Amino acid sequence: MKEVSKLMNYRPDIRVVDATLRDGGLVNNFQFTDEFVKKLYETNRKAGVDYMEFGYKASKEMFDVDKFGKWKFCNDDDIRAIVGDNDTDLKLAVMADVGRCNYQRDIADRQDSPIDLIRVATYLSTIPAAVDMIEDAVRKGYEVTCNIMAISNAQEEYLKTALQILGESPVDVIYIVDSYGALYPEQIERIVDVYAEFAAKYNKKIGIHAHNNQQLAFANTIEAVGDGVDWLDATYLGMGRGAGNCAMELLLGLLRNPKYQLFPVIEFVENYMKKLQEEGTVWGYDLQYLMTGILNQHPRTAIAFTNEKRKDYADYYKELTMLD
Amino acid sequence: MKEVSKLMNYRPDIRVVDATLRDGGLVNNFQFTDEFVKKLYETNRKAGVDYMEFGYKASKEMFDVDKFGKWKFCNDDDIRAIVGDNDTDLKLAVMADVGRCNYQRDIADRQDSPIDLIRVATYLSTIPAAVDMIEDAVRKGYEVTCNIMAISNAQEEYLKTALQILGESPVDVIYIVDSYGALYPEQIERIVDVYAEFAAKYNKKIGIHAHNNQQLAFANTIEAVGDGVDWLDATYLGMGRGAGNCAMELLLGLLRNPKYQLFPVIEFVENYMKKLQEEGTVWGYDLQYLMTGILNQHPRTAIAFTNEKRKDYADYYKELTMLD
Repeated sequence: MKEVSKLMNYRPDIRVVDATLRDGGLVNNFQFTDEFVKKLYETNRKAGVDYMEFGYKASKEMFDVDKFGKWKFCNDDDIRAIVGDNDTDLKLAVMADVGRCNYQRDIADRQDSPIDLIRVATYLSTIPAAVDMIEDAVRKGYEVTCNIMAISNAQEEYLKTALQILGESPVDVIYIVDSYGALYPEQIERIVDVYAEFAAKYNKKIGIHAHNNQQLAFANTIEAVGDGVDWLDATYLGMGRGAGNCAMELLLGLLRNPKYQLFPVIEFVENYMKKLQEEGTVWGYDLQYLMTGILNQHPRTAIAFTNEKRKDYADYYKELTMLD
Repeated sequence: MKEVSKLMNYRPDIRVVDATLRDGGLVNNFQFTDEFVKKLYETNRKAGVDYMEFGYKASKEMFDVDKFGKWKFCNDDDIRAIVGDNDTDLKLAVMADVGRCNYQRDIADRQDSPIDLIRVATYLSTIPAAVDMIEDAVRKGYEVTCNIMAISNAQEEYLKTALQILGESPVDVIYIVDSYGALYPEQIERIVDVYAEFAAKYNKKIGIHAHNNQQLAFANTIEAVGDGVDWLDATYLGMGRGAGNCAMELLLGLLRNPKYQLFPVIEFVENYMKKLQEEGTVWGYDLQYLMTGILNQHPRTAIAFTNEKRKDYADYYKELTMLD
């Protein structure tokens, strides 16, 4: 049983990361207006959010700049146009995917960039490439996290080996990423236990990035907080790929550090997030995502189901389970 | 940490109660078509659901029969028109609210009724009246549960006294009811601990009825299962008052007893529940319910906000917190 103090009090080490532009950008191809991004930045500042993730540092050779909004690429100048010198307590982050970016070239030295934190995203199969990116970013002066994606499919010995390698790397934070929204809180507790061994040994922090396929993104984040995880990803109104993420309004409603403020979050959701939904951008819990979550599968077929505006959930379930 | 076996295996003592008509009826004044109710009954049978709650046994003196659908009153004949002799493994339930029913008159002997289970709903302040109803129902031959509503506002000594009184009564199951959707999983664990002491002493089962104000209805139900709670309420697509309940499709996706079948649930949600939503019936997670959940308040003002089709969430938050 968790200590009551974990619910009543707070750990100053907690860091809230707003991933709305990055994970939400996967829903709308990063087509956010500048007004939206500026207001989001202001809201994060008012709400006491610790980090704001702007998007990806994707390679312009691999991705067509005409097909995506600018936050797929996160040029330093585009970020500066929003934040100026960012003379605030809100730190700025971007994500760099293993194999999908030219980090040596596209990530400048920190002293020349508005970015504070590089979030390296990797699968278990590409850990050495992730370490290369981590070392590059640390050398350039950044804080660095590493997100190990899709760990609900990982075998424990492989996961431990990855944590050993990352432990020996200069990364600051290692993330649990439930890419498929497949994990239950009890499993989060067990996985945190595995991470915690290496985090303690190598003096790393642990983070969590949850998906809402089974309406458990917030619950799994709470579970992780109670288990000692400090870095918490959330997005406004849960906007994110497929079933979306842990909602910022839920998370800041829980955290007891007085620096966090719920009211600006509510204002932003009312004025900007609800509007996105009304204009037709679709994300959030629905049966197709529940199914891929239960079956521990990548949500790509569920996203296709959504994009095709299909409503034949039962037929889709037959396809997934090969019953047809 | 919960035993892995609690997630991988199953307890045969688990009972799933479908509360769609009853808690969902609070959303649409119990205006379900007979076709809907018949299909729901068939679906519950196919899905292996243990109990189907038809609605309330409300007093026709206190409530105008012209303003509500028939499941507000649950005449035995109306139930028989759906289920015939109910020669199935699915048991039938109704809810009787303390102070809102004429149970001596309106609840027949079990041998003359299609109903198997009476669910007595009470606040902490009316426990003796609940015991009177429990004794009446047991005398008439029914299984009986008692739902203690709004316990998120209860002081522990009052709760313990209520559990002592109910322990000494002939009730079979005592329910944890998070009426305000205010509780976090850690709190559920602590409350189950309190219930468990009396349940063990008096040989009672424990149940849970959760609300989804903070997207925790399913998570709190999982938590309760892991803590030894056996009776689990759920509704299709989470239909229920305000933010709704634990979704049946989530719950049956978790439970490992092979008697439970997810596919018929998906079919029913596709063909009937989604249609209710398309026709304009509104329930489920939204900011106004999150706010009353966080503030541990009855959702009535949030329901009014919804019914008035208000969208000024920030102003509503000011009203709730007296900031305006």
